[in-house]
Amino acid sequence: MPHIPVAILGATGAVGQRFVQLLADHPWFHIAALTGSERSAGQPYGRACRWVVPGEMPEAVREMTVLPSTPEALAAAAPNARLLFSALPSGVAREVEPALAAAGYAVCSNASAHRLDPDVPLLIPEVNADHLALIPHQQQRRGWPGFIVTSPNCSTTGVVLPLKPLHEAFGVRQVQVVTLQAVSGAGYPGVPSLEILDNVIPYIAGEEDKLEQEPRKLLGRVVGDRVEEAPITLSAQVHRVPVFDGHLAALSIGFATEPTPEAVAEVLRDYRPSSEVAALPSAPQRLLIVRQEPDRPQPRRDRDAEGGMAVTVGRIRRCPLLHIRLISLVHNTLRGAAGGAILNAELLVQAGGLSQEVQ
Amino acid sequence: MPHIPVAILGATGAVGQRFVQLLADHPWFHIAALTGSERSAGQPYGRACRWVVPGEMPEAVREMTVLPSTPEALAAAAPNARLLFSALPSGVAREVEPALAAAGYAVCSNASAHRLDPDVPLLIPEVNADHLALIPHQQQRRGWPGFIVTSPNCSTTGVVLPLKPLHEAFGVRQVQVVTLQAVSGAGYPGVPSLEILDNVIPYIAGEEDKLEQEPRKLLGRVVGDRVEEAPITLSAQVHRVPVFDGHLAALSIGFATEPTPEAVAEVLRDYRPSSEVAALPSAPQRLLIVRQEPDRPQPRRDRDAEGGMAVTVGRIRRCPLLHIRLISLVHNTLRGAAGGAILNAELLVQAGGLSQEVQ
Amino acid sequence: MPHIPVAILGATGAVGQRFVQLLADHPWFHIAALTGSERSAGQPYGRACRWVVPGEMPEAVREMTVLPSTPEALAAAAPNARLLFSALPSGVAREVEPALAAAGYAVCSNASAHRLDPDVPLLIPEVNADHLALIPHQQQRRGWPGFIVTSPNCSTTGVVLPLKPLHEAFGVRQVQVVTLQAVSGAGYPGVPSLEILDNVIPYIAGEEDKLEQEPRKLLGRVVGDRVEEAPITLSAQVHRVPVFDGHLAALSIGFATEPTPEAVAEVLRDYRPSSEVAALPSAPQRLLIVRQEPDRPQPRRDRDAEGGMAVTVGRIRRCPLLHIRLISLVHNTLRGAAGGAILNAELLVQAGGLSQEVQ
Amino acid sequence: MPHIPVAILGATGAVGQRFVQLLADHPWFHIAALTGSERSAGQPYGRACRWVVPGEMPEAVREMTVLPSTPEALAAAAPNARLLFSALPSGVAREVEPALAAAGYAVCSNASAHRLDPDVPLLIPEVNADHLALIPHQQQRRGWPGFIVTSPNCSTTGVVLPLKPLHEAFGVRQVQVVTLQAVSGAGYPGVPSLEILDNVIPYIAGEEDKLEQEPRKLLGRVVGDRVEEAPITLSAQVHRVPVFDGHLAALSIGFATEPTPEAVAEVLRDYRPSSEVAALPSAPQRLLIVRQEPDRPQPRRDRDAEGGMAVTVGRIRRCPLLHIRLISLVHNTLRGAAGGAILNAELLVQAGGLSQEVQ
Repeated sequence: MPHIPVAILGATGAVGQRFVQLLADHPWFHIAALTGSERSAGQPYGRACRWVVPGEMPEAVREMTVLPSTPEALAAAAPNARLLFSALPSGVAREVEPALAAAGYAVCSNASAHRLDPDVPLLIPEVNADHLALIPHQQQRRGWPGFIVTSPNCSTTGVVLPLKPLHEAFGVRQVQVVTLQAVSGAGYPGVPSLEILDNVIPYIAGEEDKLEQEPRKLLGRVVGDRVEEAPITLSAQVHRVPVFDGHLAALSIGFATEPTPEAVAEVLRDYRPSSEVAALPSAPQRLLIVRQEPDRPQPRRDRDAEGGMAVTVGRIRRCPLLHIRLISLVHNTLRGAAGGAILNAELLVQAGGLSQEVQ
Repeated sequence: MPHIPVAILGATGAVGQRFVQLLADHPWFHIAALTGSERSAGQPYGRACRWVVPGEMPEAVREMTVLPSTPEALAAAAPNARLLFSALPSGVAREVEPALAAAGYAVCSNASAHRLDPDVPLLIPEVNADHLALIPHQQQRRGWPGFIVTSPNCSTTGVVLPLKPLHEAFGVRQVQVVTLQAVSGAGYPGVPSLEILDNVIPYIAGEEDKLEQEPRKLLGRVVGDRVEEAPITLSAQVHRVPVFDGHLAALSIGFATEPTPEAVAEVLRDYRPSSEVAALPSAPQRLLIVRQEPDRPQPRRDRDAEGGMAVTVGRIRRCPLLHIRLISLVHNTLRGAAGGAILNAELLVQAGGLSQEVQ
Repeated sequence: MPHIPVAILGATGAVGQRFVQLLADHPWFHIAALTGSERSAGQPYGRACRWVVPGEMPEAVREMTVLPSTPEALAAAAPNARLLFSALPSGVAREVEPALAAAGYAVCSNASAHRLDPDVPLLIPEVNADHLALIPHQQQRRGWPGFIVTSPNCSTTGVVLPLKPLHEAFGVRQVQVVTLQAVSGAGYPGVPSLEILDNVIPYIAGEEDKLEQEPRKLLGRVVGDRVEEAPITLSAQVHRVPVFDGHLAALSIGFATEPTPEAVAEVLRDYRPSSEVAALPSAPQRLLIVRQEPDRPQPRRDRDAEGGMAVTVGRIRRCPLLHIRLISLVHNTLRGAAGGAILNAELLVQAGGLSQEVQ
Repeated sequence: MPHIPVAILGATGAVGQRFVQLLADHPWFHIAALTGSERSAGQPYGRACRWVVPGEMPEAVREMTVLPSTPEALAAAAPNARLLFSALPSGVAREVEPALAAAGYAVCSNASAHRLDPDVPLLIPEVNADHLALIPHQQQRRGWPGFIVTSPNCSTTGVVLPLKPLHEAFGVRQVQVVTLQAVSGAGYPGVPSLEILDNVIPYIAGEEDKLEQEPRKLLGRVVGDRVEEAPITLSAQVHRVPVFDGHLAALSIGFATEPTPEAVAEVLRDYRPSSEVAALPSAPQRLLIVRQEPDRPQPRRDRDAEGGMAVTVGRIRRCPLLHIRLISLVHNTLRGAAGGAILNAELLVQAGGLSQEVQ
């Protein structure tokens, strides 16, 4: 069993805290360093961080000193930690992640900054593990000893996981998606209560673009040194709702070959990732849970299925306009953020993608 | 100015209370009688009714005795009240409303029971005032001295009001609609708090069928003794969200002629109902309010516009799949229920549709 | 390790579901029968029960037939189950529980019906395990082969657990308590969302009386065949708030001997139940958790501590009127209801209180 | 009828917006200038301000330029506006308000900075209009041509208004107060939704001190150049709850002379401020509304009574520890903030307290 020191970039934010929580008891990884903003750097994590995720801050990190997000600081504090999890704000990630990859780090990022770079894998192990093949091209083109791998937007994850087997089986061509997203997706402090109590906000900056672009890359295939996007047209409308955790998406899907609702349910229920991916420590027992009840999935009832790493699907039925409608639910800060990025790192380790130097 | 006694059927429920509230100070109508369930009948309204809508129960109705919903009880208690507002549960309305029409009453109903009957107007004055022409056919075919006029489902109203001018201008052909609906739409006691706190329910029994059928009739035209439905295909997915009042709908629309978002905004902004309709006491000054902000409409901020009788539209932009996307918001218990039915009654009065006998 | 078949009375309600959830994997008990209302009886539990507690209904109970709550039905369906957990409504419990005790059952009840009967133990194992001594008197006086043991009101439990060590140390004399209670305390369907969204209700029927009476019995001592109540005066004001689980209480306490806040914190932190009680399977590792942060405990953050079986205390400071103020939080459906009653049953088993016949 | 130009200090925050809203249609005052933070100064109000209170931003202020909060800027932009309403943060108010009083302005402040200064009136017109007598002493001692008048903390207002007539009638001696406060009390952005959804926070920084001190001054009497505080001991415990507007307080009160609950209700119901105060434009028709229902007042149902300027009281009953318990509700941003400060200014105008120079 590997025993790999890792660092978390942007560890004081809401997603950073989920990384801390999930890595505190991880069978392969242990937290060797934490970074934060300039304001936080130098303070003990327990003081710098307002803990907002459920449960208690793990004891082991309380006294760790928050570092700045620089290669020098990381090298000095944790010379053996070559694998980094990034929960940096996207603006910061744009500069910092390449600098760290250039310094030889393997960066598993949850930030959006590099997701659509042609040579950067946008990765969900159960969807497109083969996109890891971009890494050597990325390293060669950029002259980096390290590299960046990204995980998708939280809502994208909940949409793409059910689309993957349907795309394989029937050829997805068109997707209308309307989301109802939890407040934790906006981080901390995030959405003011004055905005969201007894209310819905039909807007999240930048989110619709991500939902319309990322699935095309995730469902595309690697051709040479780049990804040929899947020929799918998506239309997204997003909403913030007064829910703590759990993003719900109402999908209407058009296919190359029209399936019956029963066939869709069967394909989703029968989908299994490769045995290598299924064996990763953070992979859920059941990946896609298909519910029969007319009123499921629901955020509060279904978000924690399989430790928040499953996606729950329900209300599969015909669409009068496209072919099939369904509802999908993902835990946005677990599967849709920190959990997804950790699964990516596990895949890297398993695939030997952490070179001796990096590992 | 007319001074017309009216009765409210099903006055103790949430929509019934909105009727009471709106009619308590109405310039044309005054409440002459109230009916309720068998359990309530015989009690003073102030005791039988758990008041749940904002503000206080009007003093004038507290001591009125709740009647059973029968022609005999109404005739005995309020012989001059020939105009009835029905907030009856649909199952009850199916039997009771025809009996009352047969007894000579004009029934303005908010129940769904008879909305799709071919000879019953499904009416929004600003949309299809000419559908009143069905009434003589209804009376003749059924041998009724009275008649039934219905108002649409609350969500339908918020969707059809902006569709109307767009249909006139560009020919609506396809509509994807996803709703986020307030708990007041389920009446009282309605949605248990254990179901909806920190949650979304992607299901409301029967609601999607209504949203897919009613707009076709509302936007259709009267041909002889029936309505020729508009050739529009709709697909609806509905959700209950933890919001008190205000149904929000995310629409994606395909047209016969593709308009620009600017043209859509202009058509919505410029739409005016006929001067007769605009002059009705409950008609809003501004019917369709077009917001420019990227994050509007919102239920809490926009539901009360124009006393809850306007529909607010925002986020008008192109759709990659159909032509145009937009967000629409309606106050579900005012414009979408009691207020809509009262506006229908005002139209009847103005049109002389209350015969001497009925009036 | 004992292996004891048990039945759950009133298993379809919210507290009944918590019993099912906690007993599905219990090391000593297994569910042999479930009862419900007349409406439910005869149906499979999976159909009769609208599952509202977090997580999924355990597979093992889905196909079990719901029984009526009678000795005959229980004897026929599960002849070896002599230990019953009651989540019956209080009105039903008043008749049914004595009938079952008379038929030889040991009834661990969460209902309020018999809590204040002089010969019925009102029991929290960490507080007054010695009150089990009432059972023989109860059996003798009533001629019952079985008996009834009750657990307190959910809010009482959160108040009495911290009061117990303080009473021992300093003599509690006066308690002002104001509660902020979760909606799950009202069961299902319970509080309508129209009542509680964006609102507080400063009233729960009967709750204040329970909070003012039950602690006196719980902190009293057994004298002969009855409990001599503790000489404490309590004043309670209760509120329902839009929180799912977790009852919070703001206490102000007067003592026989005024302690410092530090002494209070120390006494709470150092309190340990007897080793027998601490060894019970449902007993928490830490019973009373004292938080130092100025803004804790909070329902969402602290209710699940120790599997919902701990009580969390914070904001210990002087009171200008009485002596000490503090905030206490209990998980109302776990420690405060089903979990508490199961702990009582574990104590009975350990104490040999289940006679051969009953066991 | 006077026609008085005024300025609002700190106009972009939540309380500042309430000032704008209430003054936009005020019969005596009109808004001549608005100030904001350095970041906002120079921008049009419509751009600088994220409008968060219900309803729309008044048209008249959209294009007004936000000024810095300095005498110079105010003098240049609105030379005739000598009356200022301050919604400044307390830290800013500490410096800025004295500077403005020194420059000759009459400052009606909602900030806490100067509330407890011995020569500054802490004022509720219906409670202690005679405290205006402090103003000449303030001006003389400090050598100011202008002066400062303050309105109390939002929760204090909801507590003191019912205490005033009870103190007159029976002599209030001890008050236990536990509050459940709305999120709007924290301003904007204020409480993050991640903190308060499905939660309660038993802490608001500084709030308990205010609740324990301000009522003593408000109910005290002017002796020479200072206020002799009322000899009342208060103990406060405050909570933030997921409610938009409306602070609820659970009170337990000890008196010099024990009254019956009926006597308390009668005194509250019969209380009338002086006819001068009752005639002020913002004074409510009914000041104290006593509800009989067992479950009132409630924030959502009662906060808007009398345009948010009344205080609603309910659940008046004996207390086993002190004498009387009751529940009180105040609209925290109307009566408890902007509305209260405007009423103070109206009193000043009526009392001739705005000197020629100031007026």
